[in-house]
Amino acid sequence: MTTQQLINQIESKKSFLCIGLDVDLNKIPQHLLETEDPIFEFNKSIIDATHDLCVSYKPNTAFYEAYGIKGWKSLQKTIEYINEKHPEIFTIADAKRGDIGNTSSMYAKAFFEDLDFDSVTVAPYMGKDSVEPFLAFEGKHTIMLALTSNEGAFDFQTLQTEGIHGETKELYKTVLETSKTWKNSENLMYVVGATKAEYFTEIRKIVPDSFLLVPGVGAQGGSLSEVCKYGMNKNIGLLINSSRGIIYASNGVDFAQKARIEALKLQNEMEQILTQ
Amino acid sequence: MTTQQLINQIESKKSFLCIGLDVDLNKIPQHLLETEDPIFEFNKSIIDATHDLCVSYKPNTAFYEAYGIKGWKSLQKTIEYINEKHPEIFTIADAKRGDIGNTSSMYAKAFFEDLDFDSVTVAPYMGKDSVEPFLAFEGKHTIMLALTSNEGAFDFQTLQTEGIHGETKELYKTVLETSKTWKNSENLMYVVGATKAEYFTEIRKIVPDSFLLVPGVGAQGGSLSEVCKYGMNKNIGLLINSSRGIIYASNGVDFAQKARIEALKLQNEMEQILTQ
Repeated sequence: MTTQQLINQIESKKSFLCIGLDVDLNKIPQHLLETEDPIFEFNKSIIDATHDLCVSYKPNTAFYEAYGIKGWKSLQKTIEYINEKHPEIFTIADAKRGDIGNTSSMYAKAFFEDLDFDSVTVAPYMGKDSVEPFLAFEGKHTIMLALTSNEGAFDFQTLQTEGIHGETKELYKTVLETSKTWKNSENLMYVVGATKAEYFTEIRKIVPDSFLLVPGVGAQGGSLSEVCKYGMNKNIGLLINSSRGIIYASNGVDFAQKARIEALKLQNEMEQILTQ
Repeated sequence: MTTQQLINQIESKKSFLCIGLDVDLNKIPQHLLETEDPIFEFNKSIIDATHDLCVSYKPNTAFYEAYGIKGWKSLQKTIEYINEKHPEIFTIADAKRGDIGNTSSMYAKAFFEDLDFDSVTVAPYMGKDSVEPFLAFEGKHTIMLALTSNEGAFDFQTLQTEGIHGETKELYKTVLETSKTWKNSENLMYVVGATKAEYFTEIRKIVPDSFLLVPGVGAQGGSLSEVCKYGMNKNIGLLINSSRGIIYASNGVDFAQKARIEALKLQNEMEQILTQ
């Protein structure tokens, strides 16, 4: 999928919502546990109930790997279902991968070819040759961790470092700056946590045009309007993720309807922001 | 497995060799492609031929994920085969995972419970709460990236940062120092690339007692004797990984015998070092 197609979808749906499909068997409605593939059945219901309100789905691979082969099968069925029924949706494999070059190539093959996701999240610690193999795929997007929304973000990401022009700046800014020098860097997007809305101003100075995937709105305390105020660009440039707040809105038989209500609240807020 | 059991194994086998099972279907002998599960058949032959010469096997998850469900099945069969036939072997899931707390818990469940590996590799970028869920597993080990062996290691890992006591030092040293303050940090080991043997002196000042997993000997240019000179501690404290140099020594029907010859060369060198 091209970035323009993603932008068109945002404009037509009046939404830049990404729904995280982080499915925990301990949290889903009891009645689904009797089906052959409870994780897929759960996802299918969530997708059927919300696909017109969001522009992206983001399964987090950990929640599938935890169930071994069965989990990987659920992941495959989920991405196939989305690609078949809603090919306009921008799909994200939230995998946070990254390794030496030949290994990253294999991860890229796993998510871009075997599973046919539009994008994958990666970690920057191993540098250029751990990310460039992902960037080599045309029509695919690589979403690199910059500033995350968790407590541990302040352990290393905000350490003062020497930037590429010799001036002192936080590590996440050096990561952003450096990544722009990599081959096919136009295929990069970045993860930036919503819990630190004021940081977006600084981030937009470095990556004015890139899409940012923003976790942390809602459950983790981030404010949608604040993030938009500081982080939006001329193409919107934001994908706001919500996982637990939507998919676990209810654990009864009405879970999909309740998920829709939560997604609709966010979509409404987004529509207001977009039409201001 | 306890660290003491790993040390005992090193002493009895006179080896601290780890063999990386990074199986690429394009590189394995043609005749295996006719079997039902070529990746597992390849691994089985390598394991049968080398288990007395090494103390650890390290499948890299990327090489299995690239083949989807079939690949994940090969990974499961491989770890089950090692655990059943050679329970003394220290197994490493080379996965380089790391995410927010509840997600890292799911990855830990995937590798420590579902697949029953002794250890998993993780990336440090997201900090404390992305690693501690792994450390909570008793008898399991978490091997965190510190200084890797690839070119991109110099993009961020060697940037000057502020250390935990306020003094300036490279990021990988701050990562090492900081990780020692985390809960259950005694379950940490670290990845340190062999291509920079002189760095080991500095690293040993920070983590004198920890085991280091060392890629980069051989194919990537690192020297075994140099690494041992600067990196070994009173319990050896090193696991030297070789992947391609051993498993792809031949792509004929004699691949397992040739792999054994290469593993034996390294084990011989290690035995000499251990008995000096």
